Amino acid sequence: MKGVNLDQQNGYSEDNYTEKAKSNIKKYINGKCDIHFIPGGTQTNLIAITAFLRPHEACIAAKTGHIVDHETGALTPTLIKPILDYHHFEHMVKPKLVYISNSTEIGTVYTKNELKNLYEFCQNNNLYLYIDGARLGNAILASDVNLQDMYNYSDAFFIGGTKNGALLGEALIIKNLDIKDEIRYIIKQRGALIAKGRIMGIQFNELFKNNLYFELASHANKMANILTTELKKLGCKFLVDSPTNQIFPIIDNKIIENLLKEFDFYVWEKFDENSSVIRLVTSWATPVKEVYNFIEEYKNNIKKR
Amino acid sequence: MKGVNLDQQNGYSEDNYTEKAKSNIKKYINGKCDIHFIPGGTQTNLIAITAFLRPHEACIAAKTGHIVDHETGALTPTLIKPILDYHHFEHMVKPKLVYISNSTEIGTVYTKNELKNLYEFCQNNNLYLYIDGARLGNAILASDVNLQDMYNYSDAFFIGGTKNGALLGEALIIKNLDIKDEIRYIIKQRGALIAKGRIMGIQFNELFKNNLYFELASHANKMANILTTELKKLGCKFLVDSPTNQIFPIIDNKIIENLLKEFDFYVWEKFDENSSVIRLVTSWATPVKEVYNFIEEYKNNIKKR
Amino acid sequence: MKGVNLDQQNGYSEDNYTEKAKSNIKKYINGKCDIHFIPGGTQTNLIAITAFLRPHEACIAAKTGHIVDHETGALTPTLIKPILDYHHFEHMVKPKLVYISNSTEIGTVYTKNELKNLYEFCQNNNLYLYIDGARLGNAILASDVNLQDMYNYSDAFFIGGTKNGALLGEALIIKNLDIKDEIRYIIKQRGALIAKGRIMGIQFNELFKNNLYFELASHANKMANILTTELKKLGCKFLVDSPTNQIFPIIDNKIIENLLKEFDFYVWEKFDENSSVIRLVTSWATPVKEVYNFIEEYKNNIKKR
Amino acid sequence: MKGVNLDQQNGYSEDNYTEKAKSNIKKYINGKCDIHFIPGGTQTNLIAITAFLRPHEACIAAKTGHIVDHETGALTPTLIKPILDYHHFEHMVKPKLVYISNSTEIGTVYTKNELKNLYEFCQNNNLYLYIDGARLGNAILASDVNLQDMYNYSDAFFIGGTKNGALLGEALIIKNLDIKDEIRYIIKQRGALIAKGRIMGIQFNELFKNNLYFELASHANKMANILTTELKKLGCKFLVDSPTNQIFPIIDNKIIENLLKEFDFYVWEKFDENSSVIRLVTSWATPVKEVYNFIEEYKNNIKKR
Repeated sequence: MKGVNLDQQNGYSEDNYTEKAKSNIKKYINGKCDIHFIPGGTQTNLIAITAFLRPHEACIAAKTGHIVDHETGALTPTLIKPILDYHHFEHMVKPKLVYISNSTEIGTVYTKNELKNLYEFCQNNNLYLYIDGARLGNAILASDVNLQDMYNYSDAFFIGGTKNGALLGEALIIKNLDIKDEIRYIIKQRGALIAKGRIMGIQFNELFKNNLYFELASHANKMANILTTELKKLGCKFLVDSPTNQIFPIIDNKIIENLLKEFDFYVWEKFDENSSVIRLVTSWATPVKEVYNFIEEYKNNIKKR
Repeated sequence: MKGVNLDQQNGYSEDNYTEKAKSNIKKYINGKCDIHFIPGGTQTNLIAITAFLRPHEACIAAKTGHIVDHETGALTPTLIKPILDYHHFEHMVKPKLVYISNSTEIGTVYTKNELKNLYEFCQNNNLYLYIDGARLGNAILASDVNLQDMYNYSDAFFIGGTKNGALLGEALIIKNLDIKDEIRYIIKQRGALIAKGRIMGIQFNELFKNNLYFELASHANKMANILTTELKKLGCKFLVDSPTNQIFPIIDNKIIENLLKEFDFYVWEKFDENSSVIRLVTSWATPVKEVYNFIEEYKNNIKKR
Repeated sequence: MKGVNLDQQNGYSEDNYTEKAKSNIKKYINGKCDIHFIPGGTQTNLIAITAFLRPHEACIAAKTGHIVDHETGALTPTLIKPILDYHHFEHMVKPKLVYISNSTEIGTVYTKNELKNLYEFCQNNNLYLYIDGARLGNAILASDVNLQDMYNYSDAFFIGGTKNGALLGEALIIKNLDIKDEIRYIIKQRGALIAKGRIMGIQFNELFKNNLYFELASHANKMANILTTELKKLGCKFLVDSPTNQIFPIIDNKIIENLLKEFDFYVWEKFDENSSVIRLVTSWATPVKEVYNFIEEYKNNIKKR
Repeated sequence: MKGVNLDQQNGYSEDNYTEKAKSNIKKYINGKCDIHFIPGGTQTNLIAITAFLRPHEACIAAKTGHIVDHETGALTPTLIKPILDYHHFEHMVKPKLVYISNSTEIGTVYTKNELKNLYEFCQNNNLYLYIDGARLGNAILASDVNLQDMYNYSDAFFIGGTKNGALLGEALIIKNLDIKDEIRYIIKQRGALIAKGRIMGIQFNELFKNNLYFELASHANKMANILTTELKKLGCKFLVDSPTNQIFPIIDNKIIENLLKEFDFYVWEKFDENSSVIRLVTSWATPVKEVYNFIEEYKNNIKKR
């Protein structure tokens, strides 16, 4: 056909690249779902939560500080039950959605069994379960959970692109039919219906054509694992045991000061008078050499003391 | 320097590409302003309006249907005054911002004098003036207005990238200090603080390094101008005289049916029993050959009748 | 029982007065419904609309100026259909609720047949029908519609107390089960769950115990009807034929000036160079004598000219 | 003058009763302020917070559970400082308003000095201070704070009517000019601009004409003080020392069960395996006799054990 598009614009994620990207993702999932590509993680969360909740309804989410001590970072039925019991009438917001991240904010992961229990608890208590997967690749490679489990044991979740190789874009996977028909309206209303949606389609197509997504996550996890193993050998303690690409070593404040001259990382929180927890994040692009540079530098620093 | 970023992420539009893009745009503007890159036009408008307005305050915007008849598409003090007079107390919303598009929804443009008058009217009436520049390149090339005038005669405006060569991204230019400090919060809150903001910085850097932005807009306008001139020669009437890349010829319904088999365009609105207004949009990527194909096809169709 | 309430507060419209008021209203309605008392009309509308709509959904409401010419003030399927056709996809808000007032803003009323047709149209088009009854007593007494019809042909409506004898309070009647369970949350969230809800219960109990509500409305309508009849005899024209307590005579500007010295009323809108439409509203408390004073004064004024 | 109001409606808190009520309140306050009467406490808080904050700005408020242990219920600079330090950039909400209640949720009060320090801290840190005075009468009579101090050391506060003798109504006192002009719009938008505002004006006029407001609060405090003194004599412990009309005795669970057969009160929280904290609230209407009945009943119960 010789037709020509005088406008030149392909419409709002209805292009072929986007369709292919969806097909590639659906190969990992047995069951009906809708997939939408959205520029960023914050926006994806806002859109999903807007779709699931009414103005008087509320999210139950883990408070990072809290979950370090309890259940190693995971939000469990035991933690949610008292919140439900407390919010029982209209003088308070009505809990309606449980929001978790996998991997969590502190790098830990949910097991398949934990997810299953949590989802069943939510189902029995008239709660939605929504999972933030900004770092989902890293979680999947460090646990017995796969995309099929994510689908089976949630109402919706997203597969993070931005933090795992894409320039921008997250894939929102919706199983629950309650929000299926409305979601495009909300995506549009929130300004996330990008005119040239193919910019995300192209990337997710590549990421899921031949397992690239998981290869990138695998590299990131490996780099973090090397750091963990080697730092532990040198006597370093950790805030929490993380099998993914975010780790939280506890380091002497003076050493932190020296390391910051060469490396770029956050100080997560004060640990005691002399030491702090730092957050190291590795990615698909972290060179092995730089990981060993960091270990070397740390080693030199502890020797001096 | 041998430093290494273990996170690999450049932060939220604070990278070098974004800085260069801002410098390039500022060469066109003499005066202080803040520039923010935002993924899409809807989101840019939402963010700017959120920043300028309180919940009880409202926008005054042109209603396309209306403005065709009045003032050829422009929103003028004459049209705004009675709205202000009517909304004078707390039983109604309080008009606080005038929203215009340049070029307008129907392809027309504001002259420098029109902009100046409108801005002065707004200043005298305690109103903000915000200009949607999704098609600003096309407007500038078809009028006596330049980026300096846009800056002089508005509180904020945006330079559209998506509709003029970029894959995504709009540059929001803020002159008014009232919203300067708050805007990053609102961009973040609305999910538009893209982690890898450089994706927009890189593009705007290219667009404004050597006038590329205006070259692309120039091509689009030229293609539309050819269509207008040739269709007029063939006796075709237009809804409105548009000097930019959106034109609105009035065409016999049967001819429209035939043209739609070969070309992709919108039917804008019914004109009379036998004919309709169509909307043709050309872009930086529209080939000259396709423009003449369209004219040829139209010619063949009117001969047959 | 010798129990005592150390708090002294009866809880949030769960007192006996409120229960009695509900029973009295339910005598007029055969069918299941929930009744909630809310301090004011604006708040009642906000609450109902919040309950019925999601953020991307919209109201279809009559624009007063428009409806004067079309269908004498009523919103009909003929007027709604094109709006539905136009808003067909996610680039626009999704119409979901039709909002009408009975009596309307210009004092006219819906017939039983009009209501029935409108409700059936809404049902067939997946739209809610909500009726603002701030002046419902006046509408019912001037039409063939009663409270049972209001219930049969709407998803929810309110019976206005404030404008018909109560100090404050409106009774929101909800038939549609979609919002039944959520509404108390929204009433609370909007700050309308008044601690001493009995203040409204007591008043509605009185209004509906022995038909007082309709007696008050009847008086208001009669006073307006006298005004209409007598002014017409004196050659006065009206903007619209209103059978309720709001009437809109068209009066010479100089006469208006004189009348305003003695009486308190709004100038509704300019009619032509020499005359304007004024709005006269009578109430349960309007004395017959004052109505005749107004007519007398008008008569004196037209004699002088 | 023989003028007559055909509408019969006095406009939206612009009546004489409301004016008188404002004058009476202003006798207690030396300094400029605006006063608005609003039906309920929740709505007053929503309106004030809406007026003070932008969408990305946030409240700092005391968490009841927390403040029991820290600073006996008061929110102090020491508690606020770390919150400010933590929320330092646009990836988080921006704290902009400190919200306290006087008396607090657990019946304690702020001293003049505490208020002064808190207000000065807020001023130095670009924060508004807003005080919920639902039980302000009780706080004032139990501390060295008066209405003048409330005015001096806050940007706005409200004087609670509902919990101290009025059927409904709170008086919002605004000192800060930032929100002065906008507040009527927000009151209207939130549905709190009651048509017959005089219903609140009349009540506040009575409450503040001759000190009635404080007499009512005084009675409530006295009744609670008797309960406290007598229960302490009988060996009862308290969660916190409250000088106002809300007290929190810790009572054996079996005794609670018996008391609930005769009296109406909340179980506030579990204290240990055998006992719980209960909340007793007295009011202007609590009879002395009932207070002694409660004490007697408690005495009988502890004897039996």
